[in-house]
This record gives sequence, structure tokens and C-alpha cells, in this order.
Amino acid sequence: MTEYVLPQHANALGSVFGGQIMAWVDLAGAICAQRHSGHMAVTAFVDDLKFEQPVRVGEVVRLDAKVTAVFRTSMEIEVVVQGEDAMTGRRWPCVDAHVTFVAIDQDRKPTEVPPLLLDSEEVRASQAAGEARRAARLAPKPI
Amino acid sequence: MTEYVLPQHANALGSVFGGQIMAWVDLAGAICAQRHSGHMAVTAFVDDLKFEQPVRVGEVVRLDAKVTAVFRTSMEIEVVVQGEDAMTGRRWPCVDAHVTFVAIDQDRKPTEVPPLLLDSEEVRASQAAGEARRAARLAPKPI
Amino acid sequence: MTEYVLPQHANALGSVFGGQIMAWVDLAGAICAQRHSGHMAVTAFVDDLKFEQPVRVGEVVRLDAKVTAVFRTSMEIEVVVQGEDAMTGRRWPCVDAHVTFVAIDQDRKPTEVPPLLLDSEEVRASQAAGEARRAARLAPKPI
Amino acid sequence: MTEYVLPQHANALGSVFGGQIMAWVDLAGAICAQRHSGHMAVTAFVDDLKFEQPVRVGEVVRLDAKVTAVFRTSMEIEVVVQGEDAMTGRRWPCVDAHVTFVAIDQDRKPTEVPPLLLDSEEVRASQAAGEARRAARLAPKPI
Amino acid sequence: MTEYVLPQHANALGSVFGGQIMAWVDLAGAICAQRHSGHMAVTAFVDDLKFEQPVRVGEVVRLDAKVTAVFRTSMEIEVVVQGEDAMTGRRWPCVDAHVTFVAIDQDRKPTEVPPLLLDSEEVRASQAAGEARRAARLAPKPI
Amino acid sequence: MTEYVLPQHANALGSVFGGQIMAWVDLAGAICAQRHSGHMAVTAFVDDLKFEQPVRVGEVVRLDAKVTAVFRTSMEIEVVVQGEDAMTGRRWPCVDAHVTFVAIDQDRKPTEVPPLLLDSEEVRASQAAGEARRAARLAPKPI
Repeated sequence: MTEYVLPQHANALGSVFGGQIMAWVDLAGAICAQRHSGHMAVTAFVDDLKFEQPVRVGEVVRLDAKVTAVFRTSMEIEVVVQGEDAMTGRRWPCVDAHVTFVAIDQDRKPTEVPPLLLDSEEVRASQAAGEARRAARLAPKPI
Repeated sequence: MTEYVLPQHANALGSVFGGQIMAWVDLAGAICAQRHSGHMAVTAFVDDLKFEQPVRVGEVVRLDAKVTAVFRTSMEIEVVVQGEDAMTGRRWPCVDAHVTFVAIDQDRKPTEVPPLLLDSEEVRASQAAGEARRAARLAPKPI
Repeated sequence: MTEYVLPQHANALGSVFGGQIMAWVDLAGAICAQRHSGHMAVTAFVDDLKFEQPVRVGEVVRLDAKVTAVFRTSMEIEVVVQGEDAMTGRRWPCVDAHVTFVAIDQDRKPTEVPPLLLDSEEVRASQAAGEARRAARLAPKPI
Repeated sequence: MTEYVLPQHANALGSVFGGQIMAWVDLAGAICAQRHSGHMAVTAFVDDLKFEQPVRVGEVVRLDAKVTAVFRTSMEIEVVVQGEDAMTGRRWPCVDAHVTFVAIDQDRKPTEVPPLLLDSEEVRASQAAGEARRAARLAPKPI
Repeated sequence: MTEYVLPQHANALGSVFGGQIMAWVDLAGAICAQRHSGHMAVTAFVDDLKFEQPVRVGEVVRLDAKVTAVFRTSMEIEVVVQGEDAMTGRRWPCVDAHVTFVAIDQDRKPTEVPPLLLDSEEVRASQAAGEARRAARLAPKPI
Repeated sequence: MTEYVLPQHANALGSVFGGQIMAWVDLAGAICAQRHSGHMAVTAFVDDLKFEQPVRVGEVVRLDAKVTAVFRTSMEIEVVVQGEDAMTGRRWPCVDAHVTFVAIDQDRKPTEVPPLLLDSEEVRASQAAGEARRAARLAPKPI
């Protein structure tokens, strides 16, 4: 997903405001989750987001989403967001997000998601790391 | 902050899409951060977000933001988001977010933020919990 | 209701355009009317609006709505709009509006609204003033 | 000015929400005020608005604006709003608004506006009626 | 149709971006097509668009649409777009577009459109020119 | 560029309206033109657009843009638009557009664009076809 930053996306400083980037992360992740699961998908969890560098009006926001792990009725999607100056080709990190989506059926009930094909070391490592993050999400929080 | 959910905020299911809620969280937090610091503030970090229950077109999104901890040039803001059916008065939890904002000066450099007035047990506990969360944010992540 | 003024709300001068403020007044009033009546509510009448001072990009618009009088199937809501510079805390009057909403049922027919509880001098005075304004609204206009 | 009503303009009932109509009234009036005065113009006052009949998604909103009276640095613009079903040609009254705009110069100071050419009975009557409405606006309000 | 150019319509240069003008052309044409046909109408074809001169924030976009030719279930609409500086009255050409809309019935099937009344030389010439453009559209393209 | 179709993009039929697709085509093309030229780029010409099949709320719009020919200060960009049902993976043609952008410098004057590297038969054919389309664009039109 690629977005050209227009004044309508900017804050008073002429940069994309953080919430707009979060909105794009959510949309990019939702498309990815629907493609994998074959179902509508709703946002259930967003892991820590760290905003690195801003993106300004006239620059471009690039979002690359991929499925990093699959659970029974949910999926973890990683969305890597970069800024780009289309005129120079320079790119810089903006945000790296893990978003968990739940697949839902016609009645809005959670429904099963096909597992990742664990046919390479890379995919198996990705699934394992996703399961570790999921365990951390479900762990009771310190107050 | 209170938002009436219109079709322009909704996904294909007639609910506010998660990214729109994140956008509102960011705006509500930014206002709160500016009020406390007396400076422009930019989003630096969003802690885990867990989406509880959806909010639909015709319902209301309520966002309550408060400063929970202050560091040298940044502040942690908690934004509690609830859904509300304005016709029945029913409310339900939607999201509970901690967002960290950096105060910036005219040259967009980080600038100091006045500390919280630690004059009650409640505020001291809030500051301590915020510092613990900040330590967790800064800790190296397991891969 | 609190709105952070972004470039997308502004006119060519960098201030919120009057129509955007009117749109927010209407939404804030509609939420208030639904809360009081327990029904959907549609805008029927807006009294004179006087715009005092502008609000600019990067500033905040605050809207406070309350029910000032109730008639059989309609309600008068007062919406007080202020500008705020969140960095200094300065506030200034922007608009003070009286909007009348009609409560409607499932078939979009006007439906009865619970009366104000006239249990204090203040509420009785508010209802009486609202009734006087309503009489003025219904009076034939001079050409 | 003519607007096709899209889902993004609608409330949960599928009608244009009142505030959106007010926003369009303000824009149509502002264009008319700039054309007459040759200056930027800001909204100063909106007279009573009575909403007659709703306009729904897929229908059309028509706005006709004209200068009805000119004062020293301000102008009264009448904006007549109609709904239209473009498929049948049916039209119906929606709102009839009088909006007062102040002409401003480069420094945002009020600046003089050329008078209406009072060369017909109709224009003289319009100016006189506008002056009467202006006197009513400036009169102290009953509490 | 008349649109006041706000920052939300602009690109990073402060001009309306081309795609926003195309969106307005489409809406103005759709209204015109519905008025002529008495049916919903969907965009089928847009002829070459040549962008002459830009329109900037604070200026006005004027769109004039008329039916130039009618085929069995479709219509060619010409939309002439001009920029206007409302303060000086200066106008300039922006785009001149021919858009073909198909009239559709309740089941979204193409449906017949009443012919143009060929009662003047001008209308006959317009219909003939439209038929020539249609033949060109349907002709196989080189390459 | 990939866009998830939300109610805010739709017409009264629940499909993306044609003008919204044209707006996305323009943005996708502008990013591509800036990447190739290293300059801001403004829309100069859009060739015939034929809308094949609609895309509906909840579906996805995919836009793929590439430089097909370069002239002295302008570039022809082809933007292929497809609809996609992310849940089934089905894709269908929506629009195939050729848009010409002019590269501009800081003073908004046209500026030179680096030529395409004509190092393969495919690129040479693309450039030749673009030059033929350009000759057709510049040819006097039949009335």
C-alpha cells in the first residue's frame, strides 16, 4: 500500500499525524488478513508502535504487510511503514507494527483460519516468534 | 473527546474501523500532551492496544485522556475509549491505550516538560507505573 | 466534544471555516438530544449564530452541549463553542448556539420526549427562556 | 452550487446531516460574498435556520446564493437550499438561510464593500429588508 | 456545480490535484445524466482530458455539464471546468471533458434513455459530433 | 497502490464512484512520475478511460503504475486498475489509464526528464507506442 501525503493527512506541522499512520496500518493489515483467511477480519490487538521519523506533505508513505503467524481464528500481521521522498528515492523507517486480526464469518463469529505453510525455516521461525509474542500479549500485565 | 460515528468512519460491516479509533486516540492524546507541556507534541510510542468491543454507525465514541507519567521531554498519556449507545446510555469498553508524546520546540527539538505534581498517593503511583512501563518499552525485545 | 483543528478543517486563511464549526455544533447537539430523549434526533431549527473569534490550525475547538428546554417532541440544545490554545490554556468565545432537535421513532415520526425535571430554579428558568425563544421562532416573521 | 449526496455526507439514517448542509451553506455564501466584495470574507452571523425536509443519499442538494443587502464592511447573503431527486426532477425546500460575511483585507482587518446598485425596486426592497434584519440582529436580546 | 478550493483538496503545491478535479467532473456529469435519463447512471468512459491551468486554494472551481449526445442506453455529457478567482472575477479554462454514462435500472441492467429533442440545428450538430466521437471510442485502437 | 473500499468512497449503489477511481489513478501516477523524474509532477493529460467492472464496498482497488514513455519535460504513465475480492482472490479489470505528467522545478516551470533506458526490445516498443499516442494527442481534433 502506498499513500501520497496530502495536506488533508497532515497536522499543524505539515507532517502526517500519528493517528493517520495508524489508520493506514490497520487498513493494510486488514487487506492482508482477508487475503490469507478468506474471511472478513477485525482488529483485535496492536502491539507496541514506535514512531521513528516523520513523513511530510508531498512525501510518500509505503506500507508492506505480511502474515507472520497464524493462530486458530486469528492472524498476526506485520506492517512495515517507511517514509519515501519519491524525488530522491530516499527511504527511512517510520513504524514497524504487529497487528492481530480475528477472522469472522457472516454472523460475525470468529472462524478458523488456514495455518501458515511451515515449509521453510524462515516461516517456522516467524510462526514461533509470533507465538511468543502472543503468549506475552495474553500474559497478565504488571500493574 | 466525543465522536458521533458516521458512515464515513465505518468499514464494510458498519462498525468504526480500528484505524479510525487509533486516529482519534492519537488526537485526544495530543491535545492532552499539549495542555500539560505547553508545547507541540508528536507521537513517539503507542503501547499495546487491545480492541474489546466494536462501535457502530449511529453510536458514540468517548475518549478520556489524562497524563499518567512525565519523563524529561516526554509524557505518557492514557486514553480510555468507550462505546456508547446515546439512546440507552449503555457504555462498553473499546480500547485502553497508553501513548507517549515528545514535546518539541519551534525548531522541532525535544524540549523539557514540567513534571507531574506528586502531591497525592494516586499521582505518585501513576508516575511509578508509567516509569515501569517506560523501562519495559526501552528494554531490548526478545527476537 | 473536543476537536483538534487540522488542515483538513481550514479555509485558505488557516482558520476553521464557519461551516465546519456549524457541522460540529450539529453533531454535539445531536448526541446531547439522543441522550436526553432516548431516540434518534434530527435537526429542525438553528437560532442565530454569531461568530466571535476564529480558531486556527493547531488550536482546539471545545463544544459543550446541554438541554435547555424540552417541548412535546422536540428539545432545545445549547451548544457553547470555545477556541482553545492547548499550549497556553487560553480560551476564547467562538459561537453560542441554540439548536432544536426533533426526536423520531423507527418510522421517522416525531415521538414524545421526557420533560426536564423542573426541580431547581435554574432548570425552571432555562425551560421558561427556551419556551420564550420557541414562541419567537414560531411567530410570523416581518417580511 | 450543487452537491451529489454520497454516503460520506450522511448520518446513520441515510440523510444528509444538518451540519453538512450548514457547511455547504457557508461555502456557497462565502463564494458569493467574495464575488461581490472582491475580498476574502469570513462568516460573522447566521440567522435562524429552519430545516424543512431531509435530503437522502443518491439525491442532490442545490444551493443558490445571492447578496441581499450590503452594509459598510459586511454583506448579507441569502442561501436557498433545495433537495432534488435528479431522476424525477422533483424538488423540495430544505433550508433558507441568511448569512452575514465580513470582508477582510490582507491584514485580516474589515474592509469596505461596494454598495448594491439600488437601481430597481426589487433591489431597494431587498436592501431595506436586510437592514431591518440587521437591526434585529444588533438589538439586545431578551434573556 | 461550484466548489470552493480548501486545503483538503490540494496537493503539496497548494493547487487542486488533478484527481480531485476528475472526481468533481464525474459527480457533475452523473447528476446531469440522471436528470436527463430519469435513472441512476454509472461512468462508462471518459474521453481525453487536457489540464490547462491549475486552480489554487482559496479559488473556485466551476463545472458546467450538459448532455451533448444520447445513444440507446448511454449519454455523452460534456463537463466544462473553469478556475475562478472570486475576488477579481477572472476565469480561466481548466479542463473540458466528455464523459459517457450508462443509465441503469433497479437491477443494475442498462436501460433506455430518452433521445435528445433534435429540434434545432445546434442540437442536431451536437448529437452528430457525439456520434462521431462514439464511433472513434468503439474503433479498434492502434497497437 | 492498494485501497480498501470504505463507505466514504462509495456512491449510493455501494460501488466506488468513477471519480474516486480517477483520483486514485492520478495519485498513483504522480508518485510514479516523481520517482522517475526526481521532480514534482503535475497532471497534463489523461487519455481515454474505459470503466470495465465496478468495485464495491469491502473489496480492494489495486493500482499498478509504470512509466511507458518519456518526452522532453513530460512522461506518460500507465496505471492499470483492478478490482479484487481479498477473500476469494478473484481479480477483474476496472480501468487501464495513460496519464501524462509534466515535471516542474521549484518555480513551477517544466524541467527536463531523464529518458527511458532503451536497453530492451520491450522498452523500445513501449516508448514508440507512447510517442504514437502522444502524436495522436497533439493532432488537431475533428470537431
